[in-house]
Amino acid sequence: MKIGLVGLGKMGGNMARRLRRNDIDVVAYNRNKKVADNLADETGLTAAESLQSLVEQLDAPRVVWLMLPAGDITQQHLELFADLLHTGDIIVDGANSYYKDSIKRGEELAASGLKFVDAGVSGGVWGLQNGYAMMLGGSDDVIGHLKPVIEALAPVGGWVHCGPNGSGHFVKMIHNGIEYGMMQAYAEGFSLMRERTDFDLDLAAIAESWRHGSVVRSWLLDLTADYLAGDQQLDSIEPYVADSGEGRWTALESVELGVPTPVMSLALMMRFASQGKSDYGDRMLAMMRKAFGGHAVKAKE
Amino acid sequence: MKIGLVGLGKMGGNMARRLRRNDIDVVAYNRNKKVADNLADETGLTAAESLQSLVEQLDAPRVVWLMLPAGDITQQHLELFADLLHTGDIIVDGANSYYKDSIKRGEELAASGLKFVDAGVSGGVWGLQNGYAMMLGGSDDVIGHLKPVIEALAPVGGWVHCGPNGSGHFVKMIHNGIEYGMMQAYAEGFSLMRERTDFDLDLAAIAESWRHGSVVRSWLLDLTADYLAGDQQLDSIEPYVADSGEGRWTALESVELGVPTPVMSLALMMRFASQGKSDYGDRMLAMMRKAFGGHAVKAKE
Repeated sequence: MKIGLVGLGKMGGNMARRLRRNDIDVVAYNRNKKVADNLADETGLTAAESLQSLVEQLDAPRVVWLMLPAGDITQQHLELFADLLHTGDIIVDGANSYYKDSIKRGEELAASGLKFVDAGVSGGVWGLQNGYAMMLGGSDDVIGHLKPVIEALAPVGGWVHCGPNGSGHFVKMIHNGIEYGMMQAYAEGFSLMRERTDFDLDLAAIAESWRHGSVVRSWLLDLTADYLAGDQQLDSIEPYVADSGEGRWTALESVELGVPTPVMSLALMMRFASQGKSDYGDRMLAMMRKAFGGHAVKAKE
Repeated sequence: MKIGLVGLGKMGGNMARRLRRNDIDVVAYNRNKKVADNLADETGLTAAESLQSLVEQLDAPRVVWLMLPAGDITQQHLELFADLLHTGDIIVDGANSYYKDSIKRGEELAASGLKFVDAGVSGGVWGLQNGYAMMLGGSDDVIGHLKPVIEALAPVGGWVHCGPNGSGHFVKMIHNGIEYGMMQAYAEGFSLMRERTDFDLDLAAIAESWRHGSVVRSWLLDLTADYLAGDQQLDSIEPYVADSGEGRWTALESVELGVPTPVMSLALMMRFASQGKSDYGDRMLAMMRKAFGGHAVKAKE
């Protein structure tokens, strides 16, 4: 089995390593070719000079796996490959793309005679070691063809063919929405424990103990316990939490389907607040309290 | 090591089994003595006729571990044992008691010359097999004395001495608050997937795959995947979610400390809603929409 891999960033680079460890031939392209060259030395993959060259080094049906940022960059590459590839070839989008885009892209590529797979990939920087959980949308025959690649990347049992195009990215979106809610639940609980100063709790010891036999044990807790063991003050970390598309799309989905997702949506809102996006509203509230009640506002330093 | 165990219900019964498997002598009392007798036959524990008899069969410093429902029943037994036990004896409360009660009880029992441990015990019906995660509040010497019992009950690494009296039940309370939030996050995510009917998703297969390598893997997900494998419709389950003290106390704690816990608190509110406690409010909203906008209300059947 031989595939083309485009994008050797945090995810793509380690995926290349994992593929090579499982004897999958990889022809890789990266915008900065130095990264591909280094990885060629390390893993024996083939670094391609260009997308054209990458395509030429694959055998029909060619498989091109994109690990690029979702959005414009992924879209541009899908269009470029739509021109470079041949009827029956397969393109996999492993980015966190919006599932509605993936449905549309599947239809557009099918019109060009190409097959498309939307692959939700989870595992972050730990994927190299643990494998990447994968949620795949596409036709049975294409997923069947990709099986050696999927099984090289995923842990045993850690992938699922969700359904047609779009369903892989849909399920990955939900996965991330759940992740937002879980993370927020832990963060709130640890905040309460930290604030109850009279108990002088060792949050690292508590997190570590919860990993064994408690109802809240999880991989997120494993990571949390590891970090807290070295630093439970977290003073060096700005209380700013970024968000990416999936959290927002999950909230949109809730509205579209009319299904309440208060916890996932509120976890997203709390991230917005951490980004300072409720500061204006908070100033307004302080102003109103002063206006109707004469309560002092805290002057900005 | 020999201890008295009072209450052989879902938790206490299996804890007795686990203690016996680890060669801890157990003198057990249960209101319905038949349960204690059966367990005596099964595990070789000693069934006591009465609390008095239980105390008489222990050696100083006596250890009495209560596994009773939190609230009045636990309070009554603490008072009874305060009279029956002797200076230097130890009482452990393994119920999900409110940590503020545990602080007070520790003080009261200390005034009677008794030592008190508040033990938050997690693990549910799986504790027998996996061990019970334990969060303990009490003095160093008492926890030290109880170590053989604690290590028999807990999984390796799965217990923590949190601090003084109250801290064990405090940490258990937070643990359960986190659990509410995590459960709600999963429930919302799966609800969205179920509602997106056009993908015809196999929720059991998705849950199972997420157990391996995904960011949301957890013990709660393990249990969920197991259940969904047999029934993903859940039609036989009434959409009513009970709540117990810890969720409510966590919300109170948030207010008392002035620390926001939107996800944990909202998970609790959603349980209240599931119990029909937002029905009146919902009727009111329907009524108001009709009153100002002439929108039809859905008549009750």
